[in-house]
Amino acid sequence: MPYSTAKKMSNVDSEPPTKRAHTDFQSAQLAAYKGSDLELKCINTIRVLAADMVQKANSGHPGAPMGCAPMAHALWSSVAAGGAGRVHSAKSPGWWNRDRFVLSNGHACALQYVMLHLSGYEDCSMEQLKQFRQVGSRTPGHPENFCTKGVEVCTGPLGQGISNAVGMAIAAKHLGATYNTPDFNIITNKTYVICGDGCLQEGISGEASSLAGHLGLGGLIVLYDDNNITIDGNTDLAFTEDVAKRYEAYGWHVQTVGDVANGLGDLQKAIEEAKKVTDKPSLIKVRTAIGYGSPNKQGSESSHGAPLGDSEVAAVKDRLYGCDPNEKFYVPEDVAAFYKEQADEADAARVAWEAEFAKYKEAHPDKAAELERRFNHEMPEGAFYDLPKFVFGKDKANATRKFSEACLNAVAPKFPELMGGSADLTGSNCCQIKGAKDFQKHSPEGIMVRFGVREHAMAAICNGMFAYGAFRPFCATFLQFAGYALGAMRCSALSKFGVIYIMTHDSIGLGEDGPTHQPVEMLESLRAMPNMNVFRAADANEMAAAYEMALKNVHTPSVICCTRGTVSPLENSTKEKAMRGGYTVVEAEGDSAPDLVLVATGSEVWRCVDAAKALQSEHSIRTRVVSMPCQEIFLEQDDEYRNSVLPGNVPTLSVEASSEHGWHRFSHAQIGLTRFGMSGPLEELFVKFGFGAENVAAKGKEVVDFYKQRGGNVPNLNDRPHFVNFTGPDH
Amino acid sequence: MPYSTAKKMSNVDSEPPTKRAHTDFQSAQLAAYKGSDLELKCINTIRVLAADMVQKANSGHPGAPMGCAPMAHALWSSVAAGGAGRVHSAKSPGWWNRDRFVLSNGHACALQYVMLHLSGYEDCSMEQLKQFRQVGSRTPGHPENFCTKGVEVCTGPLGQGISNAVGMAIAAKHLGATYNTPDFNIITNKTYVICGDGCLQEGISGEASSLAGHLGLGGLIVLYDDNNITIDGNTDLAFTEDVAKRYEAYGWHVQTVGDVANGLGDLQKAIEEAKKVTDKPSLIKVRTAIGYGSPNKQGSESSHGAPLGDSEVAAVKDRLYGCDPNEKFYVPEDVAAFYKEQADEADAARVAWEAEFAKYKEAHPDKAAELERRFNHEMPEGAFYDLPKFVFGKDKANATRKFSEACLNAVAPKFPELMGGSADLTGSNCCQIKGAKDFQKHSPEGIMVRFGVREHAMAAICNGMFAYGAFRPFCATFLQFAGYALGAMRCSALSKFGVIYIMTHDSIGLGEDGPTHQPVEMLESLRAMPNMNVFRAADANEMAAAYEMALKNVHTPSVICCTRGTVSPLENSTKEKAMRGGYTVVEAEGDSAPDLVLVATGSEVWRCVDAAKALQSEHSIRTRVVSMPCQEIFLEQDDEYRNSVLPGNVPTLSVEASSEHGWHRFSHAQIGLTRFGMSGPLEELFVKFGFGAENVAAKGKEVVDFYKQRGGNVPNLNDRPHFVNFTGPDH
Repeated sequence: MPYSTAKKMSNVDSEPPTKRAHTDFQSAQLAAYKGSDLELKCINTIRVLAADMVQKANSGHPGAPMGCAPMAHALWSSVAAGGAGRVHSAKSPGWWNRDRFVLSNGHACALQYVMLHLSGYEDCSMEQLKQFRQVGSRTPGHPENFCTKGVEVCTGPLGQGISNAVGMAIAAKHLGATYNTPDFNIITNKTYVICGDGCLQEGISGEASSLAGHLGLGGLIVLYDDNNITIDGNTDLAFTEDVAKRYEAYGWHVQTVGDVANGLGDLQKAIEEAKKVTDKPSLIKVRTAIGYGSPNKQGSESSHGAPLGDSEVAAVKDRLYGCDPNEKFYVPEDVAAFYKEQADEADAARVAWEAEFAKYKEAHPDKAAELERRFNHEMPEGAFYDLPKFVFGKDKANATRKFSEACLNAVAPKFPELMGGSADLTGSNCCQIKGAKDFQKHSPEGIMVRFGVREHAMAAICNGMFAYGAFRPFCATFLQFAGYALGAMRCSALSKFGVIYIMTHDSIGLGEDGPTHQPVEMLESLRAMPNMNVFRAADANEMAAAYEMALKNVHTPSVICCTRGTVSPLENSTKEKAMRGGYTVVEAEGDSAPDLVLVATGSEVWRCVDAAKALQSEHSIRTRVVSMPCQEIFLEQDDEYRNSVLPGNVPTLSVEASSEHGWHRFSHAQIGLTRFGMSGPLEELFVKFGFGAENVAAKGKEVVDFYKQRGGNVPNLNDRPHFVNFTGPDH
Repeated sequence: MPYSTAKKMSNVDSEPPTKRAHTDFQSAQLAAYKGSDLELKCINTIRVLAADMVQKANSGHPGAPMGCAPMAHALWSSVAAGGAGRVHSAKSPGWWNRDRFVLSNGHACALQYVMLHLSGYEDCSMEQLKQFRQVGSRTPGHPENFCTKGVEVCTGPLGQGISNAVGMAIAAKHLGATYNTPDFNIITNKTYVICGDGCLQEGISGEASSLAGHLGLGGLIVLYDDNNITIDGNTDLAFTEDVAKRYEAYGWHVQTVGDVANGLGDLQKAIEEAKKVTDKPSLIKVRTAIGYGSPNKQGSESSHGAPLGDSEVAAVKDRLYGCDPNEKFYVPEDVAAFYKEQADEADAARVAWEAEFAKYKEAHPDKAAELERRFNHEMPEGAFYDLPKFVFGKDKANATRKFSEACLNAVAPKFPELMGGSADLTGSNCCQIKGAKDFQKHSPEGIMVRFGVREHAMAAICNGMFAYGAFRPFCATFLQFAGYALGAMRCSALSKFGVIYIMTHDSIGLGEDGPTHQPVEMLESLRAMPNMNVFRAADANEMAAAYEMALKNVHTPSVICCTRGTVSPLENSTKEKAMRGGYTVVEAEGDSAPDLVLVATGSEVWRCVDAAKALQSEHSIRTRVVSMPCQEIFLEQDDEYRNSVLPGNVPTLSVEASSEHGWHRFSHAQIGLTRFGMSGPLEELFVKFGFGAENVAAKGKEVVDFYKQRGGNVPNLNDRPHFVNFTGPDH
């Protein structure tokens, strides 16, 4: 087909004829294509740009971008141009009411970077596309929200993105219900997702999708890249279920689009339908071909995770209308102009919205101010004023989960952005905000989320809510079941999402439920994770510190570990001391250095206090007790403070009813667990496993005697060089 | 209804009239009941025994046992008596061809203990029922396979049991296909599951069920306790999907039974149907009432997780036919007789099977011997003879994942019990056994399992295969995605299932895929877990050690961590040295103690070797390099050996491209990660993050200088007391 007869798009002129005639392949493609020639050219430009990026990086995933390019085109085009009419802003990527987009199959990120580039997002300049997957680039190997503006969440670990999107849709629905007024619709955005087979095989996506169906999350629109291929080969190998039927069973609105390679009409119709459905999330199953356009690799897993090869990329360009085998990283002018126009239109919505918001602000100044505060993550006035102060000798002993409940309820009225709940353990986790309504299909203004028995999705949904902005999500389960949610909790830490995890039943002190439910390794697992603060408060004052620190650390998730059983109160604890991560809660008698330091957390601290008393009275061993509610924050303190609390050259015994693995840093000897727990009443277990005050005292004496026998030669644990290898930026 | 007119079971006489007249409630229940009076009495006996156990323990879950008792009755009754005709043996609980039973809703374990008691299992004597949830009992708070004979797996963490059962069904299908002959059917067992809403909300069960449908696992029969109640309340709160339709979408055979409280006829019919379906797993959705019989708590979440209370238990007995409010832990004689008869019949199948197996053994001595060896977990002859030996200077450098592939392929021909595969990363994980067929619906004799992108279910399925017996399952993914599978990996460790986890791409050395895929905390997470051996081999000889140790440690799971990138070979490594967990791979020059010890794992060891050379030649710092392929095994060595490798009083620098969290135990200073990684080529990342030989040498010199400035006063890391608090049995 000669260029001059090529179909035109109505609203954009095509570029002048290229010097190069179309190849027969290209002409055939154009002839078969049901849309405009520019549309096809746009889609092909995306395909070959992604292939170029992977080729230059010599690493990456070309197949999915090439197959998904038509969907991306639809999601970055106006309704008039045959697209979804998604609104967003390259000029203001954080615009509150943007339609969120999540690339759940994050390995296809070349696609996202190309679209951000074509739409004028600064972080995805052509130079950055050429730096794909290189150290320090804005175009890393999987999408990273903290690295690239226009990317909402970290995706790549399969199933996370679609589950994050459920969180975003919850956030939008709740925020709209809370801040829209009869006269103003300020929050109206939709959430779009592209995901692949991998995401839908992961259990997390099933959990999140079941909940999304239950909640009737209209405005969540998922395009399922049904390409029949996984890394190992055809989906016939392992994935032959009826996905559409499964999503219908979840209560979703489900549509099937037979093919997008030869025209977007059916997809556009399906998206339009989906946008009309306000009481259900939508799945649009789209048949695509992985590596579309590659003569030797289309439809094969060989196009999934490796560069196509130079000659194959050239062959792709030879086949795809509008492409030139002699060009690399090439965007035809008409294509660039088209996407600029789309981006401008998408941004015009933002401009209009800002004008609207200015009026809203006038009419509803309090609501507007609160929204601004929430999106800016500013602390509300008097945020922590109502946190309980425990008065020793007056207030009652209790389980730290009850203290957590008191703290949560003390801050909740100040922080409407606190929204969350439990994975079906609301009562046990003590995480009900008193008087708060459930967030349900017909009560979107509620702030308590009933996550169901879905720990992994729960954490990912909280990530999505945080990513949306204006939320400090919290969620709860037994600490042991953090092991179910770790994939998503890690994403909180990596993505700098200050989700608050309330994890109760934090040791063998869980008691009769036994070792399947008693955490042993979990505290250490979480402590080994970068950018994760793990709190284990010993009493109410320390719990207040945990909540204050958790809320103030907006970009660090926190795990607040709580006991099931009652702890005795500490005479000298204060919130302020606890906010340094570790402090002396009982000082040894006399002015000189103590004979022994006991360092403990949570429910073991009061036992150490009792042991210290016994050591003093029975053996005149002058014992300091250090409470260490948060190792991470303690390690952030200066040397002088740390050495003043843990001198290093005084025999030190750590006591934690959990793995002793990481305690060697702080202590000469450890009382910890090197085995799993056991079913039985909690006090019996504490004694049996050596955490009773009596054994702590006995072992404390042993430690002192051990070094006495060595002439007081105590290895100084603080006298070590410390290396921080790399503290540069994350990208 | 007077006793004398009560319906009779055909094959068992009822007991003589009790002294106590039936209450009106009891009479009404009997009148409404469609089965025999003894059947109802049996079921009610189960209900009140469970309630008594929870009441005496003052802790536990009465509601589910009371609701599920009819299902349990069916599963422990012969076909003639209206049951499933499940075969098993109290006399020989490990009988290979027993029909497995998994209580996936493990919190209902009082039910399982009651059934084991009534069936004559020694571990569940009446005394043990009274010791429910007490320290040292055989009746812990959730089922534990290592504690109670008759319990197949640890359940309680929701979703694990049903996923384990998928593994058992795979195991049975494969073993039958492999060892049955035209003349003998030795392996014919079925796998029965009871599970609740909680299990079906968890993503892991969706993953496992999708795979089970794909594989067409006939013989897997799941009874779904559809009681409409979760811990937080009605399932309307969070779980309103159409479960039956979802399971149909997975390719299961699905049936619905409206009610079992008033008769077992429909359930028996459904079970009979399910048993006939050989090409699909079966889900039978059974409507039950939680806490059945409790006047104030039936149908309510209040009966879920706490004792009913003494008066309520009495009221239950007052309502349920055949029960006596004045009795506790009471089994009527006719009920006892009935279950004894059922148990005898179930065991008769075992006796007949043993006779059959004796003939099989005669006809097929090799197959029989191999089966026996497999079930006894004996090492095959010459098991490790073919493990590769790396010859320095002759063999080629490679990635340790390639060495893992070589080792796997070296042992696989000897160990037909090695069955497994990857979560859709077979090529990347290098875990294909050459020439081995896939285990698929129509090739059950295959040993490669295509798990799909389902890490959590993969691990749980391997647990189920191990629990079945006769298997050493292995599975594979990227190390980072152990975070998706941790819930099940922990069950491997707790349950003493020697599953082999092949985890590749084990550090920032994964490269361009970036921080979402680069493990940082994962090694430490796994090391903190009891009964889990974590290997990180530095070369081919160490990899051989990892495989030999993994296979020999039948009751300890192993994680074999592998590099993506090439490692340089080590001159002095041997399998034998590596089998001690840590050893000196390069000794410092001269006879006296070294000036510095570098201790490292995996891909960092050869870099330390290079650094040691530089330290010697440039600074005359005499440096020992210690390779530590497995901390856990090193820690099991005697003090003398450990001190000979890591003297403790020589400046020691650990180098691992991972969290430094636990290394303080072994080293004075650490090169490790305290942040997430970054996308980029792997060698660039190693250098950037301080793991290049140059930085290791520089930091090594700093450590030496640091202590020189302190007059050579090096804190002795080995001079510490070590406490092992409790080493008793697990129950």
